[in-house]
Amino acid sequence: MKIGKSTVPHTAICTSDENTIVVRGLNLCDDLIGHLSFADYFFLLLTGNKPDAACSAVLNATLVAIAEHGFVPSVQASRMTYAAAPDALQGAVAAGILGCGSVILGASETAGKLFAEVAARVDGGVSLDDAAHAAISELKASRSPIPGYGHPLHKARDPRVDRLMAVATQAGANLRYVEIAQAIERVIPGITGKDLRMNVSAAIPAVLMGVGFPVGSLRGVPILARTAGLIAHLAEEAETPAGFALSYQATRELQYDGVLPDGLNLNAH
Amino acid sequence: MKIGKSTVPHTAICTSDENTIVVRGLNLCDDLIGHLSFADYFFLLLTGNKPDAACSAVLNATLVAIAEHGFVPSVQASRMTYAAAPDALQGAVAAGILGCGSVILGASETAGKLFAEVAARVDGGVSLDDAAHAAISELKASRSPIPGYGHPLHKARDPRVDRLMAVATQAGANLRYVEIAQAIERVIPGITGKDLRMNVSAAIPAVLMGVGFPVGSLRGVPILARTAGLIAHLAEEAETPAGFALSYQATRELQYDGVLPDGLNLNAH
Amino acid sequence: MKIGKSTVPHTAICTSDENTIVVRGLNLCDDLIGHLSFADYFFLLLTGNKPDAACSAVLNATLVAIAEHGFVPSVQASRMTYAAAPDALQGAVAAGILGCGSVILGASETAGKLFAEVAARVDGGVSLDDAAHAAISELKASRSPIPGYGHPLHKARDPRVDRLMAVATQAGANLRYVEIAQAIERVIPGITGKDLRMNVSAAIPAVLMGVGFPVGSLRGVPILARTAGLIAHLAEEAETPAGFALSYQATRELQYDGVLPDGLNLNAH
Amino acid sequence: MKIGKSTVPHTAICTSDENTIVVRGLNLCDDLIGHLSFADYFFLLLTGNKPDAACSAVLNATLVAIAEHGFVPSVQASRMTYAAAPDALQGAVAAGILGCGSVILGASETAGKLFAEVAARVDGGVSLDDAAHAAISELKASRSPIPGYGHPLHKARDPRVDRLMAVATQAGANLRYVEIAQAIERVIPGITGKDLRMNVSAAIPAVLMGVGFPVGSLRGVPILARTAGLIAHLAEEAETPAGFALSYQATRELQYDGVLPDGLNLNAH
Repeated sequence: MKIGKSTVPHTAICTSDENTIVVRGLNLCDDLIGHLSFADYFFLLLTGNKPDAACSAVLNATLVAIAEHGFVPSVQASRMTYAAAPDALQGAVAAGILGCGSVILGASETAGKLFAEVAARVDGGVSLDDAAHAAISELKASRSPIPGYGHPLHKARDPRVDRLMAVATQAGANLRYVEIAQAIERVIPGITGKDLRMNVSAAIPAVLMGVGFPVGSLRGVPILARTAGLIAHLAEEAETPAGFALSYQATRELQYDGVLPDGLNLNAH
Repeated sequence: MKIGKSTVPHTAICTSDENTIVVRGLNLCDDLIGHLSFADYFFLLLTGNKPDAACSAVLNATLVAIAEHGFVPSVQASRMTYAAAPDALQGAVAAGILGCGSVILGASETAGKLFAEVAARVDGGVSLDDAAHAAISELKASRSPIPGYGHPLHKARDPRVDRLMAVATQAGANLRYVEIAQAIERVIPGITGKDLRMNVSAAIPAVLMGVGFPVGSLRGVPILARTAGLIAHLAEEAETPAGFALSYQATRELQYDGVLPDGLNLNAH
Repeated sequence: MKIGKSTVPHTAICTSDENTIVVRGLNLCDDLIGHLSFADYFFLLLTGNKPDAACSAVLNATLVAIAEHGFVPSVQASRMTYAAAPDALQGAVAAGILGCGSVILGASETAGKLFAEVAARVDGGVSLDDAAHAAISELKASRSPIPGYGHPLHKARDPRVDRLMAVATQAGANLRYVEIAQAIERVIPGITGKDLRMNVSAAIPAVLMGVGFPVGSLRGVPILARTAGLIAHLAEEAETPAGFALSYQATRELQYDGVLPDGLNLNAH
Repeated sequence: MKIGKSTVPHTAICTSDENTIVVRGLNLCDDLIGHLSFADYFFLLLTGNKPDAACSAVLNATLVAIAEHGFVPSVQASRMTYAAAPDALQGAVAAGILGCGSVILGASETAGKLFAEVAARVDGGVSLDDAAHAAISELKASRSPIPGYGHPLHKARDPRVDRLMAVATQAGANLRYVEIAQAIERVIPGITGKDLRMNVSAAIPAVLMGVGFPVGSLRGVPILARTAGLIAHLAEEAETPAGFALSYQATRELQYDGVLPDGLNLNAH
């Protein structure tokens, strides 16, 4: 069935015949395998360009920063899935990735769009602090959360934030979006009354957008990074199962709020 | 509900408090971010050890080799999923990963187990060629496919195979499993009557097992690598949609083999 | 890690001890198994109430209407996934479900919200046609698509639309939302200049909302229905593989728009 | 790329033109919508035949029996996924379905294959109890678990087992596989020394195989049933969030077994 206008697929990523595989205009075997790192190849696949040294340093740093943070909900979901279906590693990884949504890891992308919007205001002639103030005031007015600020565990600044900024600075990356992110952090208390500090979901776009990483693919960074963490967790799960134990613990204080049939009493479990 | 024996989850991957995140015994911010590449961090997460230079070179090479090969079925599935559900990038990535199963990308893991079995025979005192001959003869006897040999497109050797071996050799990696993979290639024609050449799913475990990558997690390599490729394809899909065009093309010659209600004729579509 | 305010989970769906399972206040074994159909149980699980006869008729009709429509993109994605990973039926079903997003099957939910909005305007004292006119004019003004109207294949009205309405009428269901859906169909040509007819994604909420199906779970209807269709397709795939053939056909006219390395020509494939 | 032998896809499930949708040889609008229940349609989609009354009763009963059992691991995974990614209901359903694997819900299919094997022995002239004894002895000898027997919570017989058998008996279903399942239950203590009672994963194939449900699709029954339960849980999650509370509870007793950097002490969390 025809859906939409186009009936012939096009691509600019890869083509091949029986002897040669071409990726982004380069010969995979001659030019790429053994010549660039996996993170650099990710950037090439995504953008069509090889990253410069600053971009490579920053991209690797963000992927390392976000790959692992213990038994977060998506890791729990993945390990429970693997415990129930150990024959399908790919299914357990997929279950974990499905938790990279708007509330948790998707904040990187939403924060990146916020930074792009502030940058556009600055390009239009507004000062950095005024642009940040206007953008955050609009979020406040529409009762929207401020993506990338505040953290349930790290009440002070998430330690990964300063480290990512230091890496970007040392690597000689363009720091424009870092400065935007800092300006937003400065204006938040005056607008919201809360001292919400930048978390890693703001730091990631702040450093990546300065090295040319596309805003529209920012959610891809935590997805790729967490995939590495999930594979490690599932290797541990295969050796030292925790999935069912997590599930057992999770419901020890579960409260049933529904009714019971007349005359029925259940044993506490 | 309690399932299984353990009720308390344990982990050795990560712990944290509000100031510090520890991964595999190292301080994430002080020791890892900015200090090692993403692929090296993947190895550390998985094994608890930092890779040496040879391991790093080989692991990066395998991830680059397998990340992208055009519109393979899992990429098509992912792009169709994104076309239908563009609000959930993570869902389209997950759909693509779900195709990393036993038939396609899972062959890396099955081939790795085959190599480990041949290695065990050699450790037991058998010559390399005899060990390879015995293992392949058993597969032939049980009518099992030989994982990692033969390719639908590359009738000669997949060009990635030689390149991965060259990278491993140059990096000074242990080549034991490369030699096992080559021995298997040598004995196949005599046993099966077919000249099945090593493909990339054999080359990946052949080079990785020599640098200490765990056999049980080999399927993680194509899963992680393809995640990078999928994110690139979905960025392209967002700009230049192909998912519905692929779907349209796929059914142009579809044949309906079922019956029709009496008297009904359908227009060809 | 604590995320959000609540630390103790609550539920009103199910509780159990070693002798008894209670679902929505009823004893699963004594009151439910063998006493109500699967579709009725779905309604009970979702709402806490057993459906009346009209609701049961309409819900079954919508589930039957939407479960299967041939090799749509999500079915193709599912069959390709199964072909690549036949050891994990659940993974192939999941891949198919992941395509139940905003563009394709999610339109049921978006259409339902549109109907609820028109109903609220009518409740506020506006005539039905004025309410429909206002709602569609707003969509037109914001260049939003009109969810549930128009179809790539059925240029006239999708045949399932009239049938679902007939079932609702015969069953004695409340037809309020059917009338809203028809009013929208009437005003569309005058506002958009296009004669977009109601499709099945509008008919489903139109009939379901009149029998008390919750708007917020409308996307659950195509998800549940398509799961049945996917399981049937995967049973066929196991017997008569089509996944790789679909994938082959899909790329026969694929055009590579990228560059090639200097001097390289690829064989057409 | 061509994978496998077939290049043209075939199907016998559905065809359509702009006026008519044909499913399994019947006109969807004229013959099916409003004429049969969703569970009956599932059987038709899967097998090409409408179920008789006994089949319909038994199939509905099994779907009702297995759709919901509280916060099992796959429900927890699904609710955590939804909490993190509430914009993609389909993703949270998919995450839950991915837990329908070999260990948990896949036991229905494995038990069905065991029953088919015992039936084949009986067809070969062995008595029922001897056939059951031989099959279970082989499982014991290969240290394989006995699929469908034993339950972590219900130490006596799972209450759903007797209920499903009563439904099958009342409906006039063929009870051959029920008798096989009972014979296996009888022989287990003598072979294993454990009084493992039939659980719902054995009862489901026992009653379904007698009404013509295909063994190869048995895993589809819990997958379809649980999809209904998951949609209900996600509707509850949207109103009364539990996903993050489950995740918090799950790790309250988590033990970190790895090392800490020299001199670092973490605050207990």
